[in-house]
Amino acid sequence: MSTHYVSGPQLARLLGDVPQERPYNAALARAVCALVLDGRVAPRTRLPAERDLAAALGVSRTTVTAAYDRLRDEGYVESRQGAGSWTALPPTNMASFGARSAGGPRAGTAGGRFGMAHAPEGAEFIDLGCATPGAPALFEEAVAAAVAELPRYSSGPGYEPAGLAVLREVIAARYAERGVPTRADQIVVTTGAQQAFTLLLQTMVEPGASVLVERPTYPHALGALRRMGARLVPAGINEGWDIELIAGSMRQAAVGLAYTVPDFQNPTGRLMGADDRAALVAAARRADALLVADETFAELAHDPAAPRVPPLAAFDTGGRVISVGSASKLLWGGLRIGWIRATAPLARRLIVAREPMDMASPVLDQLIVRELLLRVEEVRAERAASLLRGRDALAAALRERLPGWEFEPPEGGMSLWVRLGAPVATLLSEAAERRGVRVVPGPVFGADGVLEDYVRLPYVLPPETLRDAVDRLALAYREVEAAPVSRPLPAYV
Amino acid sequence: MSTHYVSGPQLARLLGDVPQERPYNAALARAVCALVLDGRVAPRTRLPAERDLAAALGVSRTTVTAAYDRLRDEGYVESRQGAGSWTALPPTNMASFGARSAGGPRAGTAGGRFGMAHAPEGAEFIDLGCATPGAPALFEEAVAAAVAELPRYSSGPGYEPAGLAVLREVIAARYAERGVPTRADQIVVTTGAQQAFTLLLQTMVEPGASVLVERPTYPHALGALRRMGARLVPAGINEGWDIELIAGSMRQAAVGLAYTVPDFQNPTGRLMGADDRAALVAAARRADALLVADETFAELAHDPAAPRVPPLAAFDTGGRVISVGSASKLLWGGLRIGWIRATAPLARRLIVAREPMDMASPVLDQLIVRELLLRVEEVRAERAASLLRGRDALAAALRERLPGWEFEPPEGGMSLWVRLGAPVATLLSEAAERRGVRVVPGPVFGADGVLEDYVRLPYVLPPETLRDAVDRLALAYREVEAAPVSRPLPAYV
Repeated sequence: MSTHYVSGPQLARLLGDVPQERPYNAALARAVCALVLDGRVAPRTRLPAERDLAAALGVSRTTVTAAYDRLRDEGYVESRQGAGSWTALPPTNMASFGARSAGGPRAGTAGGRFGMAHAPEGAEFIDLGCATPGAPALFEEAVAAAVAELPRYSSGPGYEPAGLAVLREVIAARYAERGVPTRADQIVVTTGAQQAFTLLLQTMVEPGASVLVERPTYPHALGALRRMGARLVPAGINEGWDIELIAGSMRQAAVGLAYTVPDFQNPTGRLMGADDRAALVAAARRADALLVADETFAELAHDPAAPRVPPLAAFDTGGRVISVGSASKLLWGGLRIGWIRATAPLARRLIVAREPMDMASPVLDQLIVRELLLRVEEVRAERAASLLRGRDALAAALRERLPGWEFEPPEGGMSLWVRLGAPVATLLSEAAERRGVRVVPGPVFGADGVLEDYVRLPYVLPPETLRDAVDRLALAYREVEAAPVSRPLPAYV
Repeated sequence: MSTHYVSGPQLARLLGDVPQERPYNAALARAVCALVLDGRVAPRTRLPAERDLAAALGVSRTTVTAAYDRLRDEGYVESRQGAGSWTALPPTNMASFGARSAGGPRAGTAGGRFGMAHAPEGAEFIDLGCATPGAPALFEEAVAAAVAELPRYSSGPGYEPAGLAVLREVIAARYAERGVPTRADQIVVTTGAQQAFTLLLQTMVEPGASVLVERPTYPHALGALRRMGARLVPAGINEGWDIELIAGSMRQAAVGLAYTVPDFQNPTGRLMGADDRAALVAAARRADALLVADETFAELAHDPAAPRVPPLAAFDTGGRVISVGSASKLLWGGLRIGWIRATAPLARRLIVAREPMDMASPVLDQLIVRELLLRVEEVRAERAASLLRGRDALAAALRERLPGWEFEPPEGGMSLWVRLGAPVATLLSEAAERRGVRVVPGPVFGADGVLEDYVRLPYVLPPETLRDAVDRLALAYREVEAAPVSRPLPAYV
């Protein structure tokens, strides 16, 4: 049922000192829950047998049984006779990063699981877990235009595994505008960038293969890689890309594929320069590795009129760079449309491979994305204005209320990557949750449980909400600073 | 690059007697192409080295090189220096079953690859490969209603990994109407039934596990199972379900999961009776196996007012039946929406597992499906009337022009499963392609290359088109009857 396993001693080490509150089983349950919520214990990790955890913690088996029962009641643990117990996420906490209830507002009333998440009396819960905005102003118009086109398609079966030709042409033309000549048969439309990534991994990566990832990087890319059984080779980029080091890692670890986010990297917001791009492609060529460039944020420069660095693929002549694009951040996450740019032969292979996954992508969403891409500069201008306001409001509030926190305001993207000055990100996120604001701690963005001194703070919410969030974060941080750090740093073993 | 491999001797056996035409390399290329097109050699199968195939066929290596070159030019083979050659499907032939170009009409002008597909002078190509209709009459109204709801969602991030609550409630209510009490938290909305199936397999099936499948069954389910590395245990159902035999196979092969299409089975159109359903669930319980019931066709009875057999899940009390539903056949394939009904704990696990696959399903499609499901009886009545006309027209034309072919007109679904009286389905499909009609030969529906005496004939096209198709099939069949069957029966080894 589960592919990961955490032993009794390992879990005890991750738990650190569980507060000696009464009943202790409740404190233990709360501590396990925290590990699941902050991602240090992945969902569907098999838990140790009750007696093993009891032995490792030096408590009675009854205590552990009671704690597991509590976790089961709350949906953080599932069990089956004979199969043991494993971690889970209950529906309302499903979205600790990346996804919150659509349809509801992003700032909703928090649930009260284990008393972990409650906003201040009368205040709304603020979700800074999710770096994705609502649809742009043009959306309604684009939907109407797409609906008008729909009858041309709805009399047929509606399957087009490669994507609608009219959309592939617009995507190809956009690459050409950005400096990479591209034909429509090099484009595969996917059901979001996440499916694009899953499809690429299934097609290109054998289990056990070495894949280079940036540290920090996009958590769901790590999730997909882990599930594929890839061996992760992290390359630290908190100080920017060190292409020489990356080239060395590629060669030494026999990396066959590297996943990079060169444009307003998630979460750092960094933009890879032209020289680094050329050097990275050259390094990949020497190591005979493929480069998957996630361009989800590429169109989200805060100054849309500024000169642009060409896409990574512009530095490639050997079909070595595979580009992944997405409608989710630029347009809207509720449109499940992404795309892959590759060589035409690889595109054909991907199209064949995607059919048994999900057949094809939604037709109406494809038509809407096409309409919006035809007016992409208008969308970019709107996004830039709104994100710049958000970035500056968030940065100003942080400088005022939390002057010890360090960050470089990025020139694009949607988040600040903030250095706290102390390795307390997980504790901070727990304290923040109690004060009604969700933030994602650094370790979630790392393949190996480090980055405890960082949090990602997206600035897609309105400036007044961001200021409110920083007020709460400041209170949470004081609380964390005041309390002795009783837990050892978690080592993810 | 490729997971399957066919050796020189194996490929030679599959090829049988290649016609001794000149140039021979063209005849050889045509024969390999036919194996790929009819599914006996899967796409991305690694081909033998040229010298190995030359040795196995007793021809010169130059001949094989020339044949591979032809196949490469046409897109049926791809090669890479050092990695060898593997089979592929060129874009325009991508859809040999299940998918044809949306946007274009279903009857389009055929391409001329290897001279294999050309319609009679002036006639349109008829695609009977694809058993899926256009959108129903209500579609436009449903789209308008969904678009009116969209602003409630488009101001938020748009991700809802479980599916929109408003849709899950309607789906749950429909199960309850059909006799299976269901809560919304038992429903997971997926990006089509194919994604539902992939998700279930990834979550429930370990590589190498035994999975029972019907023979014949839905080809893309076989594709997903093969890719998952499952061991397929076929249960013949051409004469109906023999639950005693199925129960025996389950026990003997230690089957952990069985995939069944109990409602108007694809391709046979059979409907599993209530007694058989009860017995199947009991057998699964005894074997401790899960049952995945594909209900894609369940709402497509030709008499929508006739008494209905309850869903398979109605016979289950132990959470053993997992139901998969789909918008594709009942509503429209261009809406990429399916769903899973399971126990609430399993639904939660599936929601967690789907996020790294594709995050969530398209919001607008979900709203459209909801609108259509709220008026599902109207849609059912329209589908029933149109499919009944198609079924009767196809059956009458076959009885007149091909009286030796045998079939039982089904009470629901979209296809006749026709017994030819001779094991010539693949040859027939090739001859039919030359006459401008695409049919899917029986072996595509089997896990093990048998069923050569069957073809599936969908009746979703208009009656006059179906009559035209039967005229061409009759000519193709005469041609196949007249020619000595020079090839041995293909044995898929």
